[in-house]
Amino acid sequence: MKRITAIYPGTFDPVTLGHLDVLERASKMFDKVIIAASEGSAKSTLFTLHERLEMLRSVTAKYKNVKADSFNGLLVQYAEKKKANVIIRGLRAISDFEYEFQMALTNRKISPELETVFLMPNEKYSYISSTFVREISKYSGDVSAFVPELVKKKLAMKYKKQTRDQN
Amino acid sequence: MKRITAIYPGTFDPVTLGHLDVLERASKMFDKVIIAASEGSAKSTLFTLHERLEMLRSVTAKYKNVKADSFNGLLVQYAEKKKANVIIRGLRAISDFEYEFQMALTNRKISPELETVFLMPNEKYSYISSTFVREISKYSGDVSAFVPELVKKKLAMKYKKQTRDQN
Amino acid sequence: MKRITAIYPGTFDPVTLGHLDVLERASKMFDKVIIAASEGSAKSTLFTLHERLEMLRSVTAKYKNVKADSFNGLLVQYAEKKKANVIIRGLRAISDFEYEFQMALTNRKISPELETVFLMPNEKYSYISSTFVREISKYSGDVSAFVPELVKKKLAMKYKKQTRDQN
Amino acid sequence: MKRITAIYPGTFDPVTLGHLDVLERASKMFDKVIIAASEGSAKSTLFTLHERLEMLRSVTAKYKNVKADSFNGLLVQYAEKKKANVIIRGLRAISDFEYEFQMALTNRKISPELETVFLMPNEKYSYISSTFVREISKYSGDVSAFVPELVKKKLAMKYKKQTRDQN
Amino acid sequence: MKRITAIYPGTFDPVTLGHLDVLERASKMFDKVIIAASEGSAKSTLFTLHERLEMLRSVTAKYKNVKADSFNGLLVQYAEKKKANVIIRGLRAISDFEYEFQMALTNRKISPELETVFLMPNEKYSYISSTFVREISKYSGDVSAFVPELVKKKLAMKYKKQTRDQN
Amino acid sequence: MKRITAIYPGTFDPVTLGHLDVLERASKMFDKVIIAASEGSAKSTLFTLHERLEMLRSVTAKYKNVKADSFNGLLVQYAEKKKANVIIRGLRAISDFEYEFQMALTNRKISPELETVFLMPNEKYSYISSTFVREISKYSGDVSAFVPELVKKKLAMKYKKQTRDQN
Repeated sequence: MKRITAIYPGTFDPVTLGHLDVLERASKMFDKVIIAASEGSAKSTLFTLHERLEMLRSVTAKYKNVKADSFNGLLVQYAEKKKANVIIRGLRAISDFEYEFQMALTNRKISPELETVFLMPNEKYSYISSTFVREISKYSGDVSAFVPELVKKKLAMKYKKQTRDQN
Repeated sequence: MKRITAIYPGTFDPVTLGHLDVLERASKMFDKVIIAASEGSAKSTLFTLHERLEMLRSVTAKYKNVKADSFNGLLVQYAEKKKANVIIRGLRAISDFEYEFQMALTNRKISPELETVFLMPNEKYSYISSTFVREISKYSGDVSAFVPELVKKKLAMKYKKQTRDQN
Repeated sequence: MKRITAIYPGTFDPVTLGHLDVLERASKMFDKVIIAASEGSAKSTLFTLHERLEMLRSVTAKYKNVKADSFNGLLVQYAEKKKANVIIRGLRAISDFEYEFQMALTNRKISPELETVFLMPNEKYSYISSTFVREISKYSGDVSAFVPELVKKKLAMKYKKQTRDQN
Repeated sequence: MKRITAIYPGTFDPVTLGHLDVLERASKMFDKVIIAASEGSAKSTLFTLHERLEMLRSVTAKYKNVKADSFNGLLVQYAEKKKANVIIRGLRAISDFEYEFQMALTNRKISPELETVFLMPNEKYSYISSTFVREISKYSGDVSAFVPELVKKKLAMKYKKQTRDQN
Repeated sequence: MKRITAIYPGTFDPVTLGHLDVLERASKMFDKVIIAASEGSAKSTLFTLHERLEMLRSVTAKYKNVKADSFNGLLVQYAEKKKANVIIRGLRAISDFEYEFQMALTNRKISPELETVFLMPNEKYSYISSTFVREISKYSGDVSAFVPELVKKKLAMKYKKQTRDQN
Repeated sequence: MKRITAIYPGTFDPVTLGHLDVLERASKMFDKVIIAASEGSAKSTLFTLHERLEMLRSVTAKYKNVKADSFNGLLVQYAEKKKANVIIRGLRAISDFEYEFQMALTNRKISPELETVFLMPNEKYSYISSTFVREISKYSGDVSAFVPELVKKKLAMKYKKQTRDQN
């Protein structure tokens, strides 16, 4: 029998119900799944890496074979360190598709034994993006349909603090 | 530990090196993979279902955890019969993507526990299609770069016979 | 105030819950909506034009400002006859998009005053296609999630009759 | 008879002939159309919100049922304040399509009664983007084919001033 | 100096103003351009190969370095016979793009020295397709904006004859 | 005989094996090819314009009819200065396609005699992007499969210097 460790990488700024839907599907298919927040140096994030990891830990605590983690640097280097065989990515739209394929083929060139697997979220989550979630939250819009309860609270606190800091 | 049976369905008219590349990736990831030729009633095929199954059997004999089979009717019904948990599909291009997603979401509605997993073939096989292979073979073009040796021979015999039948 | 008559054309072989979702959105926006089954000479349909029109009539009876009809020939000619100002089309996916745009730009060239308007169905209907519905029904799969109850019955009767005719 | 108020939102930095083509189509279809410049906090604009609104006012003065405005915050909140029923968006290309659909579905979740309607500009405007217009103007290229006369002048003045400020 | 012979292949059933726009662009760039109608065995055409070739000859007579021809079998075999170095293809839309790339990469595998070059038609022809032209002509719609005058006449005669034959 | 000068513009930050593959194809087709690094004011680059030009010069020295250059401002203005007839662009993916078409149609409007020609790189380079190359190099990943040897060294030196500067 195969023993597969899969990594589900992302910025998760913040984690959405769409991410969790993909994670749950992966957790049913593979022995161990690590959901791993990347530092994402290229773009400045709303939540710190530590905050994002804490949220991931809380909302994935109920999955026995899932572990939350964070990483720095290249995904392929992290995967090697974790002895992972599989990378999980959610595919929602064409624009995802192109970027994801380019990244997956590049990763495969560097690390041929690491396979990328694409899963589809439930169609009701197919349009959720962390970017829109932050935008809505910023203007006090209701994000209950897009993120777990805990994340909703963290978003509210974050934007309240920002407003306070500006005054 | 999970025990996953995956089905890799297709028309395979005929099977190409691109199909086999996807199959090999799946065989490393899941405990058992069934490569299953669909009867494909909607379009008339060059090879009969029996011929396609025979070719699949020959070219996949070397994979221990792979079994070749054929099926009729709906994929979800066949998957249920085989107690499969996962459907494998190769994704090469945007046009694949749309059709595949539509089919996968429809299948999920009928059979929510059956998960569709998308894998990428090696980029050197990303443009191969059974349709082009048949077209090239028909005009005696060389298909060595696109199909296994056995399939190349079967194609040559098929078109030779067709030409003979027309005279 | 503007008085707009919109036509929602299609093959509707058969009409799905996705079509009805788009229709309902259009009916809230325009004064009068004609849902019009095209004869669709180019492809042979499962249901006759008469059967398709009857189904449209039944399932749209509850909308006061909607009328079901059928037409032959070019959509722009039919629109002119009906003094319609607007064509309604549902957009679900990229492949829809390209074909629809090409058709809409061609129609605009012939009939510049006739505007095409694109609406999005609810995402839960975004993957439903009449083709898949017919395929599932043919193999006695359950299509309750995709079509109205009446259409489900008509599909069952149609395929039962086909099976009987073949024996 | 229905009385529909539509909002056509955008950054309009600056407004192009493509935007005005979409606006004119919408103005023929709906009772009232508000063309609304968003503050666009996320990206820094060439023209201030006030300048963009002034340009919109000038170039849309000839349409009786069109009003130019600007807004801050979420589009759905602004639409609610304006009692608008419909959001107008121009669709030119696939990349538009994906982003627009994601935004439209997100907006629908928050405000289910607000419908997004997609219109096609004339194909001769399909490739115009405000970004390219700014780029061409910056290097004194001729933008007559892309923007109204007034906007062309404002662009020239803006870049002249920038050059002066740098000296 | 390079001496390049380019082939512009297609079904041309019938040739449109979009095809001629691409052809003219190619004729300015390469020393010799052969516009070549393929027999197109896979799909039944409205015009015979002979009729299509005659139309191509008439409408391209004014270009000194263009020759009209027809071919059977694989494009790469025909290109070899004609000692052509370049294949010309018009790219209008995403759906073109995918099919064209798959075909071009397949051709390159068989004939590595034969390069495929993609040109864009004028945007005012970007939506014209032979399929729509035939459909419009069939119902006596006006195709003046889509095809040369000669082709318009041939279409009218063809459909008149078909109608007569059916009576 | 035609005498064609083609420009292959880009940021080339840094030049990759994919760029060189496209360049070589163009050099076989046109009399003279200028590979021209744009200053790229809009985005900050890793390498200076001078460094990028030096790398282009080194890696293209072996092509007799290729010249490396750099330019500022609009491509169409640069092309006019160089009396170029043709712009070369590599097309790898759908996202390329849309942006490239928009840019090419805009350029054509300003400079109708300047034709844009699209070429396909070898599929083994289809996923390489300068962005990924920089990212991999930053974390000391191996980029041998993506860039020429010289570029690999320059990348290593650049990131070593950056690390040193930060300490």
